[in-house]
Amino acid sequence: MTVGPAPGPDSAATDADSPEPLFRQLTLIGCGLIGSSIARAARARTLAAEIVVNARSPATRARVAALGLADRVEPDPARAVQGADCVILCAPVGAYAELAAAIAPDLAPGAILSDVGSTKQSVIRDVGPLVPRGVHFVPGHPLAGTEHSGPDAGFASLFEGRWCLLTPPPGTDAGAVARVGEFWRAMGSMVSVLEPAHHDRVLAIVSHLPHLIAFTICGTADDLADETRQQVLQFAATGFRDFTRIAASDPEMWRDVFLNNREALLEMLARFTEDAQAMARAVRWGDAAYIEDKIGRGRKIRRSLIELNQA
Amino acid sequence: MTVGPAPGPDSAATDADSPEPLFRQLTLIGCGLIGSSIARAARARTLAAEIVVNARSPATRARVAALGLADRVEPDPARAVQGADCVILCAPVGAYAELAAAIAPDLAPGAILSDVGSTKQSVIRDVGPLVPRGVHFVPGHPLAGTEHSGPDAGFASLFEGRWCLLTPPPGTDAGAVARVGEFWRAMGSMVSVLEPAHHDRVLAIVSHLPHLIAFTICGTADDLADETRQQVLQFAATGFRDFTRIAASDPEMWRDVFLNNREALLEMLARFTEDAQAMARAVRWGDAAYIEDKIGRGRKIRRSLIELNQA
Repeated sequence: MTVGPAPGPDSAATDADSPEPLFRQLTLIGCGLIGSSIARAARARTLAAEIVVNARSPATRARVAALGLADRVEPDPARAVQGADCVILCAPVGAYAELAAAIAPDLAPGAILSDVGSTKQSVIRDVGPLVPRGVHFVPGHPLAGTEHSGPDAGFASLFEGRWCLLTPPPGTDAGAVARVGEFWRAMGSMVSVLEPAHHDRVLAIVSHLPHLIAFTICGTADDLADETRQQVLQFAATGFRDFTRIAASDPEMWRDVFLNNREALLEMLARFTEDAQAMARAVRWGDAAYIEDKIGRGRKIRRSLIELNQA
Repeated sequence: MTVGPAPGPDSAATDADSPEPLFRQLTLIGCGLIGSSIARAARARTLAAEIVVNARSPATRARVAALGLADRVEPDPARAVQGADCVILCAPVGAYAELAAAIAPDLAPGAILSDVGSTKQSVIRDVGPLVPRGVHFVPGHPLAGTEHSGPDAGFASLFEGRWCLLTPPPGTDAGAVARVGEFWRAMGSMVSVLEPAHHDRVLAIVSHLPHLIAFTICGTADDLADETRQQVLQFAATGFRDFTRIAASDPEMWRDVFLNNREALLEMLARFTEDAQAMARAVRWGDAAYIEDKIGRGRKIRRSLIELNQA
């Protein structure tokens, strides 16, 4: 076993029969909320002998170093991936094409290249063609996060009990997919393999559209006349407060998500808008039965969620 | 001091200089989440010598009796208000006109009639003309609630640290408004007096529209093909899960809120829809700067909220 960080307090998760870390060198490209949580979880559970972090901004690199999140902080992405048997892109998905081009020549044969982006067809489109032969490309998406961002916001238990979805393109090496799954399970996640287009449709309705709506309604409120806006803030009731929490998420990340899941997001928004207009018509014409039926469906979905232990 | 319930554990809130309860007989018409929380809070803080509860449904009356929430449970609303110096309507706002007609002849001269409805112009329209001369009509709206409903869902601390908005019509007795304000402050709330139309506009954007959106998106998700729906539930990420929580609220109450704040709600929905369409256009045409700007406004509003200690 290579010299690595000392096992963390919850390193009991490491299987006693396999004391070898899962990866020899784990390189994280980007280190915000997700990247820094992976670094913390991988260290706490001794999943990599060495953790190397690359980040574009000098401020982020300085914080990563100060927080001791990595064994090595590397300003150059190409140098950061040298020698890595696992590389995970943890930057906003809009930066992937450029990053993939920068690191491709230095990816080691047999290495795994994964990511954590919220859109998977775009990642396969942008990164797939640049992956050298012999490197295993296993796109992933942990369904975990908070409204905070940056390396200080991460924590080792972020992925516990949450899904991580893997969307390997056809023909991906099964062993590589299994190792990435093992990595996420070791961090406490449940793992599921999805077809990329299906992933993007499901995420459009459960995550991307809710965020678009939350950002939008905050803007709508902000546009109201000054007096009303002041009281909007003062009297923010439960509904609006929850929306602002969602809307506090990282702007750069969400901009890229919207632009990279365009088709599915626009389709879901169109469906939602039709439904909202039908509700508006029922409100205008006093169709109480229609309104009550729609509200009842919200309750039904909530109950289903609770039954699935996701609430 | 009339014989009343024993002081609750937090009765220290009662001013030592005024041992008399604020009201001799408090009558609650309706006893769901809000009504039963008022009953609990009023009892815990000895704000009424006697608490009388009327509820339409025998099941609710049975639960109120079993939970010991009232000194007397009365199936007839007219009998329930006899002798009361304070009556609070705690039913869905759509039932107010009928209830007001039923109780008006039995309201005692000098009594206060208040309510907790989420729409205030409609309450003044439906109840105002039926209030007998000499009875003080002080509409109110506590900005408090959970996604649960019914008499079992209430709790004495529900109103602590939350706003209660009073919207007295012009000419309302100032002393009556002050007493209602005193009642809510004694239950831990902050009190503000608003013009009814202004209340309805502010609530349309901070509460009614977010609920309409949450109900709608749950329906949109429910309409998706079976396989997707299953995975929507399975992989419900943060955004959607928060929406389903909002959408689990009481259907009858919200149906009435939508129908009774029609104009303001439809106006806010129209503004929101314009803004969502503008965002859709930016997504379709790849206008990254526009998207980022809109997302940034969500953060700004969130920060303002946190500064106002409402987060």
